[in-house]
Amino acid sequence: MLTRNDDATLRQLLDPASIAIIGASDNPDKIGGRPIHYMRRHGYAGQLYPINPQRADVQGERCWPSLASLPAAPELAIVAVAGEQGVRAVDECAASGVAAAIVISAGFAETGSTGRALQDAMAARARAAGMRIVGPNSQGLANFGTGAIASFSTMFLEVPPADGPVAVISQSGGMSAMVYGLLRQRGIGVRHVHATGNEADVTVADLACAVLRDPEVRIVLLYLESLREAGALAEAAAMARARGVALIAVKSGRSEAGARAAASHTGALANEDRAVDAYFEHHAILRARDPQELVRYAELALRGPLPRGPRLVVVSNSGASCVLASDAAQESGLEIAPLDAATQAGLARCLPGFATTTNPVDITAALLSNNGLFGEVLPLIASDPAADGFLIDIPVAGRGYDVAAFAADTADFAARAGKPVAVVAWQAPVAAAFRERGVAVYADEQQACGALAALYRLHRLRGRVAPAWTSDAAATVPPAGLGEDSSAQAQPSTGTLSEAHSLALLASHGLTVAEHAVCADADAAVAAWRRIGVPVALKACSARLPHKSEHGLVALGLNDETALREALARQAQTLARLGVDDAAWIVARMHAGLHECALGVRNDPVFGPVVLVGAGGKYVEALDDVAVLLPPFGAEDVAAKLRGLRIGALLAGVRGDPPADVEALAEQAVRLGRYARAAGGRVASVDINPVLVGARGQGAVALDALVELAGAPPSSA
Amino acid sequence: MLTRNDDATLRQLLDPASIAIIGASDNPDKIGGRPIHYMRRHGYAGQLYPINPQRADVQGERCWPSLASLPAAPELAIVAVAGEQGVRAVDECAASGVAAAIVISAGFAETGSTGRALQDAMAARARAAGMRIVGPNSQGLANFGTGAIASFSTMFLEVPPADGPVAVISQSGGMSAMVYGLLRQRGIGVRHVHATGNEADVTVADLACAVLRDPEVRIVLLYLESLREAGALAEAAAMARARGVALIAVKSGRSEAGARAAASHTGALANEDRAVDAYFEHHAILRARDPQELVRYAELALRGPLPRGPRLVVVSNSGASCVLASDAAQESGLEIAPLDAATQAGLARCLPGFATTTNPVDITAALLSNNGLFGEVLPLIASDPAADGFLIDIPVAGRGYDVAAFAADTADFAARAGKPVAVVAWQAPVAAAFRERGVAVYADEQQACGALAALYRLHRLRGRVAPAWTSDAAATVPPAGLGEDSSAQAQPSTGTLSEAHSLALLASHGLTVAEHAVCADADAAVAAWRRIGVPVALKACSARLPHKSEHGLVALGLNDETALREALARQAQTLARLGVDDAAWIVARMHAGLHECALGVRNDPVFGPVVLVGAGGKYVEALDDVAVLLPPFGAEDVAAKLRGLRIGALLAGVRGDPPADVEALAEQAVRLGRYARAAGGRVASVDINPVLVGARGQGAVALDALVELAGAPPSSA
Repeated sequence: MLTRNDDATLRQLLDPASIAIIGASDNPDKIGGRPIHYMRRHGYAGQLYPINPQRADVQGERCWPSLASLPAAPELAIVAVAGEQGVRAVDECAASGVAAAIVISAGFAETGSTGRALQDAMAARARAAGMRIVGPNSQGLANFGTGAIASFSTMFLEVPPADGPVAVISQSGGMSAMVYGLLRQRGIGVRHVHATGNEADVTVADLACAVLRDPEVRIVLLYLESLREAGALAEAAAMARARGVALIAVKSGRSEAGARAAASHTGALANEDRAVDAYFEHHAILRARDPQELVRYAELALRGPLPRGPRLVVVSNSGASCVLASDAAQESGLEIAPLDAATQAGLARCLPGFATTTNPVDITAALLSNNGLFGEVLPLIASDPAADGFLIDIPVAGRGYDVAAFAADTADFAARAGKPVAVVAWQAPVAAAFRERGVAVYADEQQACGALAALYRLHRLRGRVAPAWTSDAAATVPPAGLGEDSSAQAQPSTGTLSEAHSLALLASHGLTVAEHAVCADADAAVAAWRRIGVPVALKACSARLPHKSEHGLVALGLNDETALREALARQAQTLARLGVDDAAWIVARMHAGLHECALGVRNDPVFGPVVLVGAGGKYVEALDDVAVLLPPFGAEDVAAKLRGLRIGALLAGVRGDPPADVEALAEQAVRLGRYARAAGGRVASVDINPVLVGARGQGAVALDALVELAGAPPSSA
Repeated sequence: MLTRNDDATLRQLLDPASIAIIGASDNPDKIGGRPIHYMRRHGYAGQLYPINPQRADVQGERCWPSLASLPAAPELAIVAVAGEQGVRAVDECAASGVAAAIVISAGFAETGSTGRALQDAMAARARAAGMRIVGPNSQGLANFGTGAIASFSTMFLEVPPADGPVAVISQSGGMSAMVYGLLRQRGIGVRHVHATGNEADVTVADLACAVLRDPEVRIVLLYLESLREAGALAEAAAMARARGVALIAVKSGRSEAGARAAASHTGALANEDRAVDAYFEHHAILRARDPQELVRYAELALRGPLPRGPRLVVVSNSGASCVLASDAAQESGLEIAPLDAATQAGLARCLPGFATTTNPVDITAALLSNNGLFGEVLPLIASDPAADGFLIDIPVAGRGYDVAAFAADTADFAARAGKPVAVVAWQAPVAAAFRERGVAVYADEQQACGALAALYRLHRLRGRVAPAWTSDAAATVPPAGLGEDSSAQAQPSTGTLSEAHSLALLASHGLTVAEHAVCADADAAVAAWRRIGVPVALKACSARLPHKSEHGLVALGLNDETALREALARQAQTLARLGVDDAAWIVARMHAGLHECALGVRNDPVFGPVVLVGAGGKYVEALDDVAVLLPPFGAEDVAAKLRGLRIGALLAGVRGDPPADVEALAEQAVRLGRYARAAGGRVASVDINPVLVGARGQGAVALDALVELAGAPPSSA
């Protein structure tokens, strides 16, 4: 058997030396005719084998009666016959030594469980024979570098192709065609347009790896509705990062309604959207909201370097556009920074008196009387430290304006500045003039600033160095031994753990938990309180009581024996009423701190364990102020995520509060992540809430925790 | 003197019987030539008077040497001469009985204080003579209904005009031209395109009132950078609402960076952006982010009724677009509701087996084999209760698709459904086919859903009935008499009030404040505690101590005499250290409650008093979870605002909490608003934090308050 992404097989998919079309048609508007039409028209230089027992020739090419009649097995076969005939054709391909088949035929998994069984069996037979399958229900693959256009999309008729540095790979045929069309509309050349359909074998990620071996590919754009496995795309992302190729992806079905629609479209398994975000960030894959945004990002990435900072300089011939651009910049997270004195002095010499020499630079309608003004102004700003990127905004141009000169000046400037330049122009002739010179153009300030901000995000994601966690990391953490267990509860190996067992498990993996003792009765509780020596909390503890505070089974601030015994008696009554007979009591020190945070783990079916960190307390779900991280990550990654939350402002210190010990909280998150990763899928979930965070230097301590184990306990524990 | 928006004068601006052009040019590309060119080309039927002492004729029209030489005073004069000559020309117009002048000349307020003085003096002289001025620094006014195109914008050359039901009025000439261009690009006819420039006299709001008298105007679009006074636009909004005309506005300078840019563009006074939102909402003015969004909203408003609910039905020939549309809908606040059984049964009869009959409706590529499918499917869904609006998404069409038929079917459907329909299509021929049939078309799902959600918001704003507050309303509230004052502090009439005076003032206007006593010494405090009979808070009270908790001058939960006396002694020491010698003490009942909220008043320089309501507590600024309301408003308005805040989820009741007494909090907000409104500008600010809100039926009580008075105390107090 072949290895999954064997170079040769994927090369044969994208650049086959010979292609058979099973179900070849003389009519270029039929599914079996269009690929032949395309390949003849776009100069496919390999061997074409139309197969149709009814015809001697097809669109001027010799036609063959069957696969068996061919002089040699083709590297690639396009299966364009429907139903059972299609399945038979795939089997014949596998038997004849065809390297890969594109199954255009529909009627498989997308129609329900019978179709899925048919598809699975067909794919299994192909796999056994060593043949790769694209599809079924695929629109096909198109390579405009070689003319191997094994696709029946009509879009290549509507919008003429031109080879270029972009690859588009999509689970949906419609979206592959649409992204191609949007790119071509912007004058961008596209080499690869691939649609994987039902993905019985070859996935979007597999093809991403394949196109990344093409050194002329500089941007890879993906459209995904579901991610079923995380490894291959991570591999593609690593290749892209190593090559400096921008990998940008739409993952739709972000919302509940969208996920429902995706399930009914392709039976797609819904991904937890925040986990998708964390996964993309982790692998420096830039996420776009929709195909239009994908293409906007691609245009800017193609036309220049990524922004290396958030500071934007705006130049416009309209004061109103300066205002709109400033609003859009700030709302996108970019900064309109002041220009330095030398830049301003230079601008003052060059601009008329009523123009502004501050950022944004309003060169006013003076552009009308001096069409060279653009070329004079731009170099003055090029090296200003306020400029990580440029937005040139031309809301009005026409008679009297030498737009071609503006475009030429801008292109010269962009080439020399070594910083990204985005133009905003809605008038078609203005946009066309700039695009002709290779400058990225947007319809409005929001779109331009959105693209600049996104590519700055990509720059930061690429620059991030993830820590290397060894697989036995969790085992190296010494048990903390903070808890003391006087109860008879044994540590279970599956299911929901009691608070005591949860805290003990977390402490053994290096997390700081509240000083506490597990007590079987009132005497033990009193003894524990005396040992702790300060006010304590008393909590009933049983794996059957995950929501103890809602039952009134938590008493706080107890500091005398009577109060403690009374509280315990009251809780015992409640437990009896609830029918819980296996409870012990936790007597825990009342720790001091500034803010209630929360930490958690979820075991994502696709991405594995992810760590949650954010605001805690009673209203943790309703407040929904939580970030998700994919291991491995460092404390600085956690701190950066916390800064992006609403609680970030509070943790930084406001209203006379000192800054909180974010470092300690981040370190707890890292330890939790190391444990969860080492444990693999055996940790189903962890909820630590609250984690009480003190002032800087005073630590963060888990006051309550709930661990759910999925299977056998982790080997490292 | 004329009344401000005298019908006749504004009529003469928009539809003048005669127009003089001072500084007329034979060259249609000169500022003094272009209006003449436009008016001749677009059939202006009134009398044109080109004025230029150097020429006998201009562009084929007889030219006059001076204003004085004209046979009659023109109704409108366009002043297209620069500098001092321009000022002289304006003065001559005023002296000659010209009704209104459009001052195109620049070099006034936009250049600095000297220019501003020049402008103010010129405007004052015109006002004294009874002449209205548009500008200076105006691009002019254009009326394509009459051909009175007193504008030098080049845009009417670039994009050919067509009369229609839309009016565009802008402070910026560039933006008026751009909005016009964007509308025309979408095939929308435009009647009015007006730019007010420096607004020495006539404002955008004045012209909005004027165009609203034109019964054929159905949409009024505004571009504003600053609002200097609230009355005229409110008048325009009332007219628009009465006529069912959509009034949609961009107010730029939303962000700090944007406001800075606006200040340097036009010296615009920055408006508090949340107050702008509150003002627009109050007057049912729909706010758009930028000119592009403005035009997207306008297209949908023009093509059909407003959505009367949030439920959207999506129909597409692409499953992927169904997913993208569902994401966009949910993110815009729309709902993808299930279709009812009858609709689904109808769809099942009409669609092929593999299509989905749920919402979104994926009619699949079956559209290729049956171009009538659209026409069959749409009527089936028209009356489904899940449909308040429709999104028809066609990401791929071309060879094999009868797009003209789809467009005709959609237009028929839209006409019959009585519900809004938006199409998503990025291919130019597809978009054009639908636009030709009068259907609104968008480039992506975000834009379409954004427009549908915005117009649903406008529908709700229009439906809102603001309560009628009589001006003496505040006086009718009986003093509550909850506070008891044993101190010697006298109620001041200006400046910052002490907590005691603030609470007393608010209580006298009907707000519920904590039960408390103001005490001069420890004995009085102890007596007050005994009277209250439960644990109390002790707070030092002085107008010089607005941030008492930060100085440790608040002690909570005191319930015995020793503790009370000790706390008071400690606070007395702190006060001595701070040099505060006028303090009294507040002894206040410790009220029980569920949530800490906050109420406030700010006196906006343009909009007057606005009321703030939201999350309270120590971190009120950092959490920034506050809504702004413009009086008059009702308790239901407040409750709706609260539901939109993050604290809204908590107030509704989560994690075992009962629902909070939102009604009581809302009633407090209404009383505060009535008081602030009756007091006019005399209340500079109010901060009530926290307002402790109990469970439903248990009320909301102000625990702390700080009132700042600006001048004389309100007459009603």
